[in-house]
Amino acid sequence: MRLDSLSSVQFKEVMAKKPVVLLPIGATEAHGGHLPLCTDSVQPEYVADAVAKLIGGIVAPPIRYAHHSSTKNMPGTLSISFLTTMHLTIDVLNSLIDNGADKIVIISGHAGSSHINALRQGCAEVAEKRAVKIMLLSDYDLVDEFPIDQTGDGHGGMVETSRVMHICPDLARKAPCRGDYVDCGYLIVSDPERCMPMGYVGNAQDATSELGKEINEFVVNRLVEEIKKSFGGLYE
Amino acid sequence: MRLDSLSSVQFKEVMAKKPVVLLPIGATEAHGGHLPLCTDSVQPEYVADAVAKLIGGIVAPPIRYAHHSSTKNMPGTLSISFLTTMHLTIDVLNSLIDNGADKIVIISGHAGSSHINALRQGCAEVAEKRAVKIMLLSDYDLVDEFPIDQTGDGHGGMVETSRVMHICPDLARKAPCRGDYVDCGYLIVSDPERCMPMGYVGNAQDATSELGKEINEFVVNRLVEEIKKSFGGLYE
Amino acid sequence: MRLDSLSSVQFKEVMAKKPVVLLPIGATEAHGGHLPLCTDSVQPEYVADAVAKLIGGIVAPPIRYAHHSSTKNMPGTLSISFLTTMHLTIDVLNSLIDNGADKIVIISGHAGSSHINALRQGCAEVAEKRAVKIMLLSDYDLVDEFPIDQTGDGHGGMVETSRVMHICPDLARKAPCRGDYVDCGYLIVSDPERCMPMGYVGNAQDATSELGKEINEFVVNRLVEEIKKSFGGLYE
Amino acid sequence: MRLDSLSSVQFKEVMAKKPVVLLPIGATEAHGGHLPLCTDSVQPEYVADAVAKLIGGIVAPPIRYAHHSSTKNMPGTLSISFLTTMHLTIDVLNSLIDNGADKIVIISGHAGSSHINALRQGCAEVAEKRAVKIMLLSDYDLVDEFPIDQTGDGHGGMVETSRVMHICPDLARKAPCRGDYVDCGYLIVSDPERCMPMGYVGNAQDATSELGKEINEFVVNRLVEEIKKSFGGLYE
Amino acid sequence: MRLDSLSSVQFKEVMAKKPVVLLPIGATEAHGGHLPLCTDSVQPEYVADAVAKLIGGIVAPPIRYAHHSSTKNMPGTLSISFLTTMHLTIDVLNSLIDNGADKIVIISGHAGSSHINALRQGCAEVAEKRAVKIMLLSDYDLVDEFPIDQTGDGHGGMVETSRVMHICPDLARKAPCRGDYVDCGYLIVSDPERCMPMGYVGNAQDATSELGKEINEFVVNRLVEEIKKSFGGLYE
Amino acid sequence: MRLDSLSSVQFKEVMAKKPVVLLPIGATEAHGGHLPLCTDSVQPEYVADAVAKLIGGIVAPPIRYAHHSSTKNMPGTLSISFLTTMHLTIDVLNSLIDNGADKIVIISGHAGSSHINALRQGCAEVAEKRAVKIMLLSDYDLVDEFPIDQTGDGHGGMVETSRVMHICPDLARKAPCRGDYVDCGYLIVSDPERCMPMGYVGNAQDATSELGKEINEFVVNRLVEEIKKSFGGLYE
Repeated sequence: MRLDSLSSVQFKEVMAKKPVVLLPIGATEAHGGHLPLCTDSVQPEYVADAVAKLIGGIVAPPIRYAHHSSTKNMPGTLSISFLTTMHLTIDVLNSLIDNGADKIVIISGHAGSSHINALRQGCAEVAEKRAVKIMLLSDYDLVDEFPIDQTGDGHGGMVETSRVMHICPDLARKAPCRGDYVDCGYLIVSDPERCMPMGYVGNAQDATSELGKEINEFVVNRLVEEIKKSFGGLYE
Repeated sequence: MRLDSLSSVQFKEVMAKKPVVLLPIGATEAHGGHLPLCTDSVQPEYVADAVAKLIGGIVAPPIRYAHHSSTKNMPGTLSISFLTTMHLTIDVLNSLIDNGADKIVIISGHAGSSHINALRQGCAEVAEKRAVKIMLLSDYDLVDEFPIDQTGDGHGGMVETSRVMHICPDLARKAPCRGDYVDCGYLIVSDPERCMPMGYVGNAQDATSELGKEINEFVVNRLVEEIKKSFGGLYE
Repeated sequence: MRLDSLSSVQFKEVMAKKPVVLLPIGATEAHGGHLPLCTDSVQPEYVADAVAKLIGGIVAPPIRYAHHSSTKNMPGTLSISFLTTMHLTIDVLNSLIDNGADKIVIISGHAGSSHINALRQGCAEVAEKRAVKIMLLSDYDLVDEFPIDQTGDGHGGMVETSRVMHICPDLARKAPCRGDYVDCGYLIVSDPERCMPMGYVGNAQDATSELGKEINEFVVNRLVEEIKKSFGGLYE
Repeated sequence: MRLDSLSSVQFKEVMAKKPVVLLPIGATEAHGGHLPLCTDSVQPEYVADAVAKLIGGIVAPPIRYAHHSSTKNMPGTLSISFLTTMHLTIDVLNSLIDNGADKIVIISGHAGSSHINALRQGCAEVAEKRAVKIMLLSDYDLVDEFPIDQTGDGHGGMVETSRVMHICPDLARKAPCRGDYVDCGYLIVSDPERCMPMGYVGNAQDATSELGKEINEFVVNRLVEEIKKSFGGLYE
Repeated sequence: MRLDSLSSVQFKEVMAKKPVVLLPIGATEAHGGHLPLCTDSVQPEYVADAVAKLIGGIVAPPIRYAHHSSTKNMPGTLSISFLTTMHLTIDVLNSLIDNGADKIVIISGHAGSSHINALRQGCAEVAEKRAVKIMLLSDYDLVDEFPIDQTGDGHGGMVETSRVMHICPDLARKAPCRGDYVDCGYLIVSDPERCMPMGYVGNAQDATSELGKEINEFVVNRLVEEIKKSFGGLYE
Repeated sequence: MRLDSLSSVQFKEVMAKKPVVLLPIGATEAHGGHLPLCTDSVQPEYVADAVAKLIGGIVAPPIRYAHHSSTKNMPGTLSISFLTTMHLTIDVLNSLIDNGADKIVIISGHAGSSHINALRQGCAEVAEKRAVKIMLLSDYDLVDEFPIDQTGDGHGGMVETSRVMHICPDLARKAPCRGDYVDCGYLIVSDPERCMPMGYVGNAQDATSELGKEINEFVVNRLVEEIKKSFGGLYE
């Protein structure tokens, strides 16, 4: 259930039951020629909707802008700054809490460390001051546990392509060939796209919608488990 | 066409034609018991999609969070700060311009003066530094010109209810009665909801989907005219 | 009575009676060739002094700098940023409250929406945290109610010119001709002065000191009424 | 000549001659029971007006708010923050330079080191980026050179009282007795007023308007010399 | 060679040869009862000094404060904020570049992801604007490559204890027993020390100074290789 | 005793006794050709260590970066901004207080007024909110009291050279000749080094290690006195 399809009156009734609020944070980011720019948006939105259904949670309006580093110069990547990302997180969290939310899960589709850190700084600042339990993760934290060899598979690779093929069959397809990663050492460069010359990394040519379905279901189930473990009580 | 349904490769090709980029900025805001919290989101998204179709533009990922004053304490209003709103606007604009956009239209569903001002500050800062033409308006700037008596009709009133009934028939319905506005003079109050005791203002009991359709079409056509007037060239 | 003509000892005695504190915020802004740059300063200072006399209030040191948009590039407009305006407002308000003020009226001579919004953001931030009643208005909010046709009369027009001719007869005179407004649509432009080619708008050639006197008295009386309505108690 | 008594048209003509622009920055600050809160405002305003007359300069609208430390808790001291003071200085300087000013003198009536430092940070930031010569001083930098024993005379003491008696005979008078300074060592205290139990320091009981006149004339002449030395050219 | 043991004159001569500048950033952080609070400081300082000697570089004054998350509530952890860490990095980098540095290596002893991200944001901002090559790494990025089983060994564990025993034999000793890590899932908690109940993680009871020496030499040699690879030219 | 040579466990025990914490803040700054860039660092570190020994205090990790004005363009001066300096001070103070410190002495080697003011702003902000006593001084505040004629002796002069010759005999020596100061009036200049053409001011050719030893001992003893006077209790 999407939070903003409710009226103010309905919302007040729903919040009185203290549901888990899921906030999917996506991105608009280049993922090669075989995946749409909304790749990092549709995955956490899919997961949030599915989890909400299973546990009776509600889904806050998704955000489709993130902070980007490695793909920032590629066509179609729209990046907001570290600080904007952090403050947006803080403001949305505080506003949800003002409205009665006491259990919030942020699911970030984009797993870049700078972006995740902006979210983490925001969550930490709120968690210190308000009476709330906040979980922060990327769905890719859980994908890592999926029992398949993911060595060398990364941004826009076999796993991600498979997942998006399952969620948005019209927008995604397997890639024509493998994408390589070029090591740039420890230099801070202003053209990081040279580390990812094809715009993606991994065996995206082996992606299938069936694999995507399996992974997506795995992530949804694992997240339900984590939520039960972290929030306890109602969900135990 | 939604910008983020394109791949990075397709996006680059589309941007080479220098299309108008439309950015709908919505809100999550209480609008009484007869309208959904996404009321201010679905209207500019509808307008942006329709205008894009008519002029060959593309629609950037919508934002569904805004800065709120008068309804900030009502259930379901999610508000981000003035500065976060301003910086988010600046970052998204700059990122679009970095990607080749030179004609951008921001359509804000929420027409509160603080929110519009946050957007305006952001647009002005970008317009001074970059080679870009930016239009900023609320669809309600154009609704004002619609030839019907709108005296005393405001937030969640007859006009807005009609428009949302047309766009989202499942989420909206006419209100049971009129909503009144209570004048609070020039005091800066921390409980501004007392000026709007029913959560909406105007003859929302007279709303109809048909009227909404007329107004929505009027707004779309007027915006196309304004775009042609402001951007000229290709659109003349 | 000007607050800063008192000694520290006298000030403490005066504040013990909990007077209304009036803070006139003016501007240094181009108003054509017939009005001085202090046009937006002398009007609220006149109103504040007159109102203070009638209700036993005191007038805080005026500020003669504001945030400007439409006239920012005209000779003589001195503009401070949105944020500086906001923080200056916050700091002065907090300092007045620290000194015992519990009823404050900010009267802004400049009525531009960005400037008023900067003041409003500042007032709202203070009003949320401190035990104080704050009124914020431009004297032009009240001028609008004056029973005369003001259609098409604006910045430096008939009404404003008349008012300043009454207050500062040596610095102001009626204009040689009408000033026109050129509509720029919804574009955010960096040269907004093109919308006001003569630097003022309206029938400034019809201004008279007598009319100015009437309007100024009207504004003073209306503000006294608003203050009584908003602050009640002592003033009822 | 006050800058804001000019019209936009007159101002443009005056600035074409590249006059020195003098910006008096005052304060609203407790100075015992014998001096008004505007003590630090009227002194630099007097000096600025007199110097402007002698060298053909113009005086920007004075500011009567400053950043205070030692008297911040005394009745009547209105303090704005270090950062607001710095940004206000930056904005006004930049706006003057945008209007053609290339020689600016800031005269601060308040000589507290934190306040002066806020002004200095602002001036330094502007001086690095713009083509302008900026002088920054307190009139008390020059008072120090006046040939009289000033040992132990400070805030609101003999010298300051005499100067204000000369400038504002109706608002100032000599004090009934000497004001003492109590050394607080190097502790950063939140009640610094304990170092100045009477609210002023020095032999304010010996102040005379005649002495004030001498000092004020001395300061005006010394500042004219400094301006000629620093700006050269036209003034040599 | 420490940069600040040179005089201004000597420094200018040294910089003319364009040496690599190494900036060790340490921390003051709890590492159990067997390691000193300067544990994260002495390691990068050791590495920086040794590398500088091998390649003719110079070492900028070390910083011994960092941004901490997981140990922030443990006795002795001194933490500076994310933004302070970022701005400090930016300022020191810019100042080094203003002095002629064109090849800079930041070595962070603390490898927490928030801290590293603060450094990375700072480096990225500088790298975009200045003509400089910046390397950023934690010495633990290189330690990871050392051929020994490091599974489950972490903060204050066998590897770190060994390294500090070699560098500061007087301040460090092996721990009495193993330190465990307690998984806290994805919750953002305000008491993260509960994940590290003994204050360290790993087989710190097996640490030896000999092992530390081997690792330290390994890190120094690997960093020399990375520097040659990244900066080329002179070092190839 | 240096704070960070303790383990977390030892630190907790030491802090339970509520010792004075001394924080030496140095600088990396040009001091002519006869003194090292660490001149302003080694002096307060020497003083802090000596005072700590005498009163049973502990010394927090020194900072060797400061905010510079007059020497900012000289080779080897590394300057951090006013705001970074202020925030670094705030963060370190708060972190010490979080760890139980209730008596803190900041000793700044660099005595420039902008730098001292940045520290003062930071201390004042902390002192208002936390239960702590903070002393802030430059060791040069005490040097001023040393009974020797210091007229015209300043940055890198006879006194400073003597002190560093005593502390770091290997890095410092007397200068070949006197250094002059050139008065620049009240202009805010971007090349302030022209006021100090030799990079130092005073009779640095007369410096001796013996004099330095006397002054250093004098400063240490005077600071012990000031600490006893300000903190009382335990130290009386």
